[in-house]
Amino acid sequence: MKVIKSIKEMQAFVLHHKKQGKSIGLVPTMGYLHEGHLALAEQARKDNDLVIMSIFVNPLQFGPKEDLSTYPRDFNRDHSLAEGKNVDVIFYPAAGEMYPQHPSILMNVNDRTDVLCGESRPGHFDGVALVVSKLFNIAQPDRAYFGRKDAQQIAVIDLMVADYNFPVEIISVDTIREENGLAMSSRNVHLTASEREQAPVLYQSLANARTLISEGEKDSERIIAFIRGEIAEKTDGEIDYIEIYSYPELKTLVELEGRFIIALAVKFSKARLIDNIIITNE
Amino acid sequence: MKVIKSIKEMQAFVLHHKKQGKSIGLVPTMGYLHEGHLALAEQARKDNDLVIMSIFVNPLQFGPKEDLSTYPRDFNRDHSLAEGKNVDVIFYPAAGEMYPQHPSILMNVNDRTDVLCGESRPGHFDGVALVVSKLFNIAQPDRAYFGRKDAQQIAVIDLMVADYNFPVEIISVDTIREENGLAMSSRNVHLTASEREQAPVLYQSLANARTLISEGEKDSERIIAFIRGEIAEKTDGEIDYIEIYSYPELKTLVELEGRFIIALAVKFSKARLIDNIIITNE
Repeated sequence: MKVIKSIKEMQAFVLHHKKQGKSIGLVPTMGYLHEGHLALAEQARKDNDLVIMSIFVNPLQFGPKEDLSTYPRDFNRDHSLAEGKNVDVIFYPAAGEMYPQHPSILMNVNDRTDVLCGESRPGHFDGVALVVSKLFNIAQPDRAYFGRKDAQQIAVIDLMVADYNFPVEIISVDTIREENGLAMSSRNVHLTASEREQAPVLYQSLANARTLISEGEKDSERIIAFIRGEIAEKTDGEIDYIEIYSYPELKTLVELEGRFIIALAVKFSKARLIDNIIITNE
Repeated sequence: MKVIKSIKEMQAFVLHHKKQGKSIGLVPTMGYLHEGHLALAEQARKDNDLVIMSIFVNPLQFGPKEDLSTYPRDFNRDHSLAEGKNVDVIFYPAAGEMYPQHPSILMNVNDRTDVLCGESRPGHFDGVALVVSKLFNIAQPDRAYFGRKDAQQIAVIDLMVADYNFPVEIISVDTIREENGLAMSSRNVHLTASEREQAPVLYQSLANARTLISEGEKDSERIIAFIRGEIAEKTDGEIDYIEIYSYPELKTLVELEGRFIIALAVKFSKARLIDNIIITNE
């Protein structure tokens, strides 16, 4: 497995292989890999001749009061895990390589970002769109892999691919969970012991909400109140949001019909966790 | 020569040829081709296996009071001219193909646009950056060709390629002029007979300014006053701007040293013309 830190070298490598007709799968990550990332790498391995995993903690998608400086990092561990999944190249640029200066041309995402994480993290998806554009231009993948835990991110990247005609197929992969239901996340490492016991309630409340809906509940306010009650009662977390929207449009729903997402964000002492389920109710 | 109107078909064509190791040159135009465009096509023909010329009058780079509706168009004429230069493909999408809806993700160009055409045409370069990004993703060129008459456009596209890591080499080609010095432009067709006689004064005043500078003039205000005097005296045009900046940074200059641009825009009755010269003064 190669590790490439230079954009120029990465582009030369890609150009060489594309000229030979090789297909390329890109797995963009911020590192501190978990089973979720590895599921993306496995899928990319099945679909493509070459698999590139990028590891880059993108400063532009963190707000001034967010956890950029404490975001967990362990390159050696990531290296072994990626190698175990037969990744061909880790693209591992320094921040100064990706941003030799602050970009002069920014992307403004004006749809699908006034709700959920877009509302509580202003500018977050502008930073995501910019870095994903850069990574697409650097790795020039045929396919790029994203986890459904970041469902709003996928909705935004789908918009970006449509608006900018990126020649990239976006593949979304199911959220990987612990047996207790907790979604895998690099940020789980920052949970205290008691928070770690409480955190599975996030998914359990979503799963129970799904059961209520399958039993006929169509009122989103009651569903939200139910989840809010569960999390308030069973965890010490502070609820950032619990919301329900159509998916992937992220528009307000009158009744719980069609395809929709129930998404939440909960702040624990040192980690803000997100999770969601997407339901299709015919 | 092929004419392709569908983005999907254009991308499939490009993918097929890239897998065979073919290099691609893109000549982005708004059509109504003149010698300037054809010089770009000639250069692209020399440098690449395949030459794609796009013809698309991009609504997003026109302001509400600008000449989108009267911008000259003649596809049959363009077709013959492009064929004469051995262009392989004309990419000729409808507006609804490029913008099935107004883009949700816009680009904001925050550098090199507070002066010259960027100042008199707010939003113009945001629209240019967006459409050029789309064209790069659609045609996936190794090289893209732009005329130096649009010197600020080249400065902005250089920024964009740097910020977004587009794997595209930007080739700029000298402005093509009539014998009297008038820069070739699709908009020249809108000049009245008497304006057409006056319009060469734009370049002649720039050329005379260059002579003054080569003779030792270092004061940009005096150069600007000289050009203003020439144009006011010898044409009926209304001066939009005459400005001098470092190039390509487009920063204010104290003295006329280093590499700089003298650029102007003049409004005639039905056409706003631009021209410039770039000087290196050691």
